[in-house]
Amino acid sequence: MEIGMVGLGRMGAAMSERLMKGGHKVVAYDPATEAVARCEKLGAVGAKSLEEVAQKLSAPRAVWLMVPAGETVTKVINELLPHLDKGDTLIDGGNSNYHETVRRGKELSEKGINYVDAGTSGGVWGLEKGYCLMVGGPDKAVKRIEPAFKTLAPEDGYAHVGPSGAGHFTKMIHNGIEYGMLQAYAEGFELLKASDFSLDLHQLAALWQHGSVIRSWLLELTEHALAKDPELANIRGYVEDSGEGRWTVFEAIDKNVPAPVLTLSLLARFASRQEESFSAKVIAALRKEFGGHAVKGSDK
Amino acid sequence: MEIGMVGLGRMGAAMSERLMKGGHKVVAYDPATEAVARCEKLGAVGAKSLEEVAQKLSAPRAVWLMVPAGETVTKVINELLPHLDKGDTLIDGGNSNYHETVRRGKELSEKGINYVDAGTSGGVWGLEKGYCLMVGGPDKAVKRIEPAFKTLAPEDGYAHVGPSGAGHFTKMIHNGIEYGMLQAYAEGFELLKASDFSLDLHQLAALWQHGSVIRSWLLELTEHALAKDPELANIRGYVEDSGEGRWTVFEAIDKNVPAPVLTLSLLARFASRQEESFSAKVIAALRKEFGGHAVKGSDK
Repeated sequence: MEIGMVGLGRMGAAMSERLMKGGHKVVAYDPATEAVARCEKLGAVGAKSLEEVAQKLSAPRAVWLMVPAGETVTKVINELLPHLDKGDTLIDGGNSNYHETVRRGKELSEKGINYVDAGTSGGVWGLEKGYCLMVGGPDKAVKRIEPAFKTLAPEDGYAHVGPSGAGHFTKMIHNGIEYGMLQAYAEGFELLKASDFSLDLHQLAALWQHGSVIRSWLLELTEHALAKDPELANIRGYVEDSGEGRWTVFEAIDKNVPAPVLTLSLLARFASRQEESFSAKVIAALRKEFGGHAVKGSDK
Repeated sequence: MEIGMVGLGRMGAAMSERLMKGGHKVVAYDPATEAVARCEKLGAVGAKSLEEVAQKLSAPRAVWLMVPAGETVTKVINELLPHLDKGDTLIDGGNSNYHETVRRGKELSEKGINYVDAGTSGGVWGLEKGYCLMVGGPDKAVKRIEPAFKTLAPEDGYAHVGPSGAGHFTKMIHNGIEYGMLQAYAEGFELLKASDFSLDLHQLAALWQHGSVIRSWLLELTEHALAKDPELANIRGYVEDSGEGRWTVFEAIDKNVPAPVLTLSLLARFASRQEESFSAKVIAALRKEFGGHAVKGSDK
């Protein structure tokens, strides 16, 4: 099928490539012209503007947005809208907040435009192995984009999981679970490292992939990372977060669901980014006040 | 090779079967005579006592203990010991506390008996897929038992990870990580269930196995469980724990390693077993005291 791809970053470029390898025609656009040029070399039809994306696709159009969640999505939709026709479909493949997706789906459907949310997992390995796609939106629109979904996903790696927003919702929970799994592995490996047995962490990550209960793709990646750098000497213990972990915690609060581990996994990332802990200062100060316990002076 | 198997419960019986399928001679013993009879039918040499296990094996003997951790291991070793010769090897395949293993290894080596600890993962699927084996102990003894380890494990699923105790230590951490992973999936699925999207949890567990970041063997088992009972209507939310999770937390405390998620995953199991929470009673009582907030009366 014909599909427009807006946003040719790491994900969008690789997805365009996978779509073209699957026999689809891709009209590619990014504000960075060199990103468009790279896609053209792989066979894409380049576009110089969002208007040109619309012009170069036959109606009913399908335009995939692979741009940062939030304002950029809103901006791109607003710019595209005047050039679209009723019956066209926009697919948001980014990590948009599902509440925004529900709102956008409603607004666009009033204008006759279909809005489909495709939660996309697979990271940098997706080009080769395929992306797991959690798709939300109206049946008819989802069905029409199905050939693209099937090309992007590995076998059985695409599903229409519910109405508008359900794709981004399930992707959000997927990422929340990922936070918890990462923290569980991380704490376990720190305990291995702290032991007196001089364990070979890489050996264990590799071993556990074969028949153990905790084998997983994340453990496979742990094995890769430890093969390159067995002590992780070249990596700082500083961890960013990118939205979904926070929204998962908001969701837990909204729905009164106790999700302590997913919450704590997010907070552990905040702690990883602090050079100094004010709460630890407070405790040290109070221990001094009530018990005369020694404190360490500030370096500053 | 020849190997004695002491303890023919779910694990010991399946491991005996896998060993025999791999061409090894198994001398099988369990206090339950019907368990011995079942093993004999599969080709094992049955033994009526621990003494007979020793008699029916040629020296240097290899006797695998697959019995409950703690006192049972001590009791079996004490009963076996008079019938063993210098150079014989005992393998503890259970989930013994690694501190006990280190102590036992030292005591037995003074008597000329080799003690090897084999942390064993794989549960009820091990018979078919093989057991992941984390082995600790002296080089020479481990090397001699290697043919059995290689039969029990899937390819690359066996490793000699360190000296006496290192096998049980790494198995303990493996299980600690497992607690955290289970809790992460569990919270995520509860959030999916609580959502307004009427999601198909089984569909999502199956979908996520294909290309998602959180694919794993535990997720595969989640898919199996949800296929049988999509709402888990037939299972109570009551979770036991069996030692390693607690020891992982003790280890974190001993080594001053912050392991909040592994700790909280253990505590969540304690909470799952409470019919009533006294701490929640205390909070309710105090909210009433300071703010006049309503409380629910006890049912009793």
